[in-house]
Amino acid sequence: MKIQLASSYGFCFGVKRAIEIAEEHKGSVTYGPLIHNKDEINRLKVGFDIGLAENLNDIQTDDAVVIRTHGIPKNELEVLNTQDHKVIDATCPYVTTPQNIVEKMSDDGYSIVIFGDASHPEIKGVVSYAKYQDDAFIVLEPEELDDLPLRGKVAVVSQTTKKPEDFAKIVAALMLTRKEIRVFNTICNATFENQDAAAELAKDADVMVVIGGKHSSNTKQLHSICQRDCANSYLIENETELDASWFDGKTFCGISAGASTPDWIVQNVIDSIQEMKQ
Amino acid sequence: MKIQLASSYGFCFGVKRAIEIAEEHKGSVTYGPLIHNKDEINRLKVGFDIGLAENLNDIQTDDAVVIRTHGIPKNELEVLNTQDHKVIDATCPYVTTPQNIVEKMSDDGYSIVIFGDASHPEIKGVVSYAKYQDDAFIVLEPEELDDLPLRGKVAVVSQTTKKPEDFAKIVAALMLTRKEIRVFNTICNATFENQDAAAELAKDADVMVVIGGKHSSNTKQLHSICQRDCANSYLIENETELDASWFDGKTFCGISAGASTPDWIVQNVIDSIQEMKQ
Repeated sequence: MKIQLASSYGFCFGVKRAIEIAEEHKGSVTYGPLIHNKDEINRLKVGFDIGLAENLNDIQTDDAVVIRTHGIPKNELEVLNTQDHKVIDATCPYVTTPQNIVEKMSDDGYSIVIFGDASHPEIKGVVSYAKYQDDAFIVLEPEELDDLPLRGKVAVVSQTTKKPEDFAKIVAALMLTRKEIRVFNTICNATFENQDAAAELAKDADVMVVIGGKHSSNTKQLHSICQRDCANSYLIENETELDASWFDGKTFCGISAGASTPDWIVQNVIDSIQEMKQ
Repeated sequence: MKIQLASSYGFCFGVKRAIEIAEEHKGSVTYGPLIHNKDEINRLKVGFDIGLAENLNDIQTDDAVVIRTHGIPKNELEVLNTQDHKVIDATCPYVTTPQNIVEKMSDDGYSIVIFGDASHPEIKGVVSYAKYQDDAFIVLEPEELDDLPLRGKVAVVSQTTKKPEDFAKIVAALMLTRKEIRVFNTICNATFENQDAAAELAKDADVMVVIGGKHSSNTKQLHSICQRDCANSYLIENETELDASWFDGKTFCGISAGASTPDWIVQNVIDSIQEMKQ
């Protein structure tokens, strides 16, 4: 049986980069989990002595602190710097961009609109860079714009993981009532690249295995995309969940993985499938 | 019978202003017709000795030249200034705005996209203000954007008379492929104000009279909007076309007028209806 990986799968550029940065700083602590995958966090702990601090207060005086891909609010960064920690910034460059845009545009007199989830760490960080916090607004739906005390000049950015079509709806609503809007398309394609590659592969494969957290919306979406074109699509967290009967009579197995699935788990799955078919 | 004018009708702010400017400059010539209404152009000729030059070459050395609301291309303005004409600028301020935006944004390194009709005098003027003519593009449909060699930074303006919903489609298409777009909503509400006011009045009136050119798309649209709510809606060019039978048994006559219809024609129509009903 042919086994083929999707042309894009698993960790995005920013997460790969953050893990490499952490590995280069043995003994550091990450402020918040570097990735939503316990096995990978455990690997970093065992192999590189990387600790985890869920709160600012949990960070010890002599800790070197890794900032994760989502970034953190500006005032928290200032606290860390004041406390003389060694700060290792692994904020994804695709997140630094909207942080910088919000800071500059707010300073230039634009009202700020951020399309995203107010509770998401990335957005908490991005909005914190507005110079005028009472002139920066986070919205998820166009209707939320109606009651905002926006100026005639508005700058708008998006959470990196949002859908472009939904961002376009926010922009369409804004542009009809404002004299000038500056639209910065800060959406990152990584999520969609994995989805497009999985869909492409599912057309040819007669069995698809998607690897990732059962509760990860990202992984579940990959799975449902594969199911559209390949009825025999399975979602597993690791190789222990494989069932040899899935591959009976099959000739082409496609593999994809969610954005929080490390490569070594993907490789374990591929090895196990190959053993089953020997 | 009650006769009521729509709360907004006829000339827009820019045209009213241009006619006042022309009246203040007796003996001048307008470069292009000031308005698409022969009766009004004749009134200006007879009452104020305002001439009409259709082409640059038709303008005599000693003519004072009125620039109409649409504006003119920058190079033509330079020619007029070089020839030492007295130039009287009646360009609508709502048109000067996109001219200035295009000039500044082009100078600041943005590709320029103009949503409008390439053959419309307003757009010929607006596009001429781009510093880099090979980096300024006029489009009517989102699909036309696909093949344009646009930079990552794009500034976009609209012809003043376009529909906001259609402009939004251009913006939506642009924002999905560009890093930054600056959207300047340069649409003027005047057309829509006349339409909204006519629709409002047509709900209450049992007969509607719309005054304007039979070939004016603006006037025809007003007429069809009125017909939606008032079956007895009539389109006339002036009072000679009125028919007394239209008002038999009617109690409330609403009046609207296209954007090229001068107030004095509207008043003639009202006077004639009142005479018919005496």
